[in-house]
Amino acid sequence: MRYYAGVDLGGTNTKIGIIGEDGEILVRNSIKTNSHEGVEVTMTRIWQETVRLCTESNIPSDSLAGIGIGIPGPVMDQEVVGFFANFPWEANINLAELMKRISKVETKLENDVNVIAMGESKFGAGKGSRTAITVALGTGVGGGIVVDGRLISGVAGAGGEIGHMKLVDNGKICGCGQRGCFEAYASATGIIREAVSRLAVNKQNMLFERIEGRIEELEAKDIFDCAKAGDEFSVDIVEYASKYLAMGIGNLLNIINPERIILSGGVALAGDILLDNVREKLKNYAMPVTLKGMEIVQGTLGNDAGIKGSIALFI
Amino acid sequence: MRYYAGVDLGGTNTKIGIIGEDGEILVRNSIKTNSHEGVEVTMTRIWQETVRLCTESNIPSDSLAGIGIGIPGPVMDQEVVGFFANFPWEANINLAELMKRISKVETKLENDVNVIAMGESKFGAGKGSRTAITVALGTGVGGGIVVDGRLISGVAGAGGEIGHMKLVDNGKICGCGQRGCFEAYASATGIIREAVSRLAVNKQNMLFERIEGRIEELEAKDIFDCAKAGDEFSVDIVEYASKYLAMGIGNLLNIINPERIILSGGVALAGDILLDNVREKLKNYAMPVTLKGMEIVQGTLGNDAGIKGSIALFI
Repeated sequence: MRYYAGVDLGGTNTKIGIIGEDGEILVRNSIKTNSHEGVEVTMTRIWQETVRLCTESNIPSDSLAGIGIGIPGPVMDQEVVGFFANFPWEANINLAELMKRISKVETKLENDVNVIAMGESKFGAGKGSRTAITVALGTGVGGGIVVDGRLISGVAGAGGEIGHMKLVDNGKICGCGQRGCFEAYASATGIIREAVSRLAVNKQNMLFERIEGRIEELEAKDIFDCAKAGDEFSVDIVEYASKYLAMGIGNLLNIINPERIILSGGVALAGDILLDNVREKLKNYAMPVTLKGMEIVQGTLGNDAGIKGSIALFI
Repeated sequence: MRYYAGVDLGGTNTKIGIIGEDGEILVRNSIKTNSHEGVEVTMTRIWQETVRLCTESNIPSDSLAGIGIGIPGPVMDQEVVGFFANFPWEANINLAELMKRISKVETKLENDVNVIAMGESKFGAGKGSRTAITVALGTGVGGGIVVDGRLISGVAGAGGEIGHMKLVDNGKICGCGQRGCFEAYASATGIIREAVSRLAVNKQNMLFERIEGRIEELEAKDIFDCAKAGDEFSVDIVEYASKYLAMGIGNLLNIINPERIILSGGVALAGDILLDNVREKLKNYAMPVTLKGMEIVQGTLGNDAGIKGSIALFI
């Protein structure tokens, strides 16, 4: 058995795990990223913690077959980070080379959502499929496209940025500054935004009661829970989100024709009330040939997708 | 030098060429497809013509390194045709096996638009690029996506069916039966349809004069020619087509992040009046990172893209 270190570099915390080539995590821990200390200090601390985890699991750290790191930003050629979202680190750093210099272990990087897609594709809900697209539905909408086991990373590391696919010309403004993005409609933020705008004019519903009128605390989960409980107001919002989700996923089916669509992230936890709706509406958007045998499933790796996926870069 | 036969199987005519591995065509000819005679008879005649062309160019036919065939329909695993558009041939035939049995030469198939994309990518406007998407703008809109030199064919052969990406929810009806498809707006048919609907209420323009009121004979070229000559009415229609073209291409850039977009087909012949407009409008739809260093160019292979592309499957 070969062993790898999987690293999920986050804005606040960084998760590190020692993982076998079968995807089983032997041991894991989370440390503060403290990016303000500089890239070299953070990378050195990540390596020190990796060595400690190796010792804990009786794996000689010099026998590690690779270190895979998921990055919150675009990655080119699995080596260079175009820029870090919310880190005070410079652009276009060859972080793989830096980590290799510190650790003497072969290192590969990928964008964090692409890493989740690789994890789900090789060890999770996509296991056994040749071509799978992971749609990560959280605060934003991200994506990772795996074709014949290989990621579509893009020439500037922006492959799989499906959240900024435009679904409405000159539509709702998105965090990216452009308009009509998939993310502006189908992310948790997009769904909450639609609910808030409807609650402003309609307070006679279970959702408003549930949150006791504290609209600023509304979460996507509240909406899905009320819809499951039969609240018509919330059911309509789920319909709205499902429509755009089906339109976005339908476009991916027509362009890539994958075997599987894997929904991950917080919104995906809504489960069947969302998935069944999307499956039904997909018939309006995806060519019939792309739906034959295609499955939409929930991701299965949860919080482990990041560290498992980063070692999938080596396998 | 290794030599290949490239075959572009069409509804009426089939083009056949003998081509070197450098993409140079030694000799070529076109024969009637006569699909009503049955798949075996047509394939046998294609092989007989291939042998004759080999003799003509002094290449022993038993030294051919491969036969590549472009197919008007979805192709799975470069072997099996899902169905033939407008051919009385049965579905799911292993045409590669059949041709190999007849010719004793290794045979590979691909969808015809995917073949054009491979041709442009390896020998034409995409030469030297790692990742290029060909957007074929004709009666419909087709596409072929080449990532790191490999086609995204799709699990059911429907990879690259970009013409059915939805740009408008519940939008204009498309030939496929669904609504709001890219093709319904940006194909020659879509552009003509928009012009016709505008001409019904506005006849005071250069375009109406040029076609002498024979609206049923209107071609996309008339619209582009009048726009180039300064006709405001036609300029507006080019604006309309450019907007949807930019939205569709912008989505492809966000999803795949390629190095190059290659426009081929009749509409692409409009040249700069269309391309410059699309380049300008792309800023509203594509993430800035995907535009850096990305070029939109016209295809260069024209009618040879089919036979050149089919041998690119081997290289």
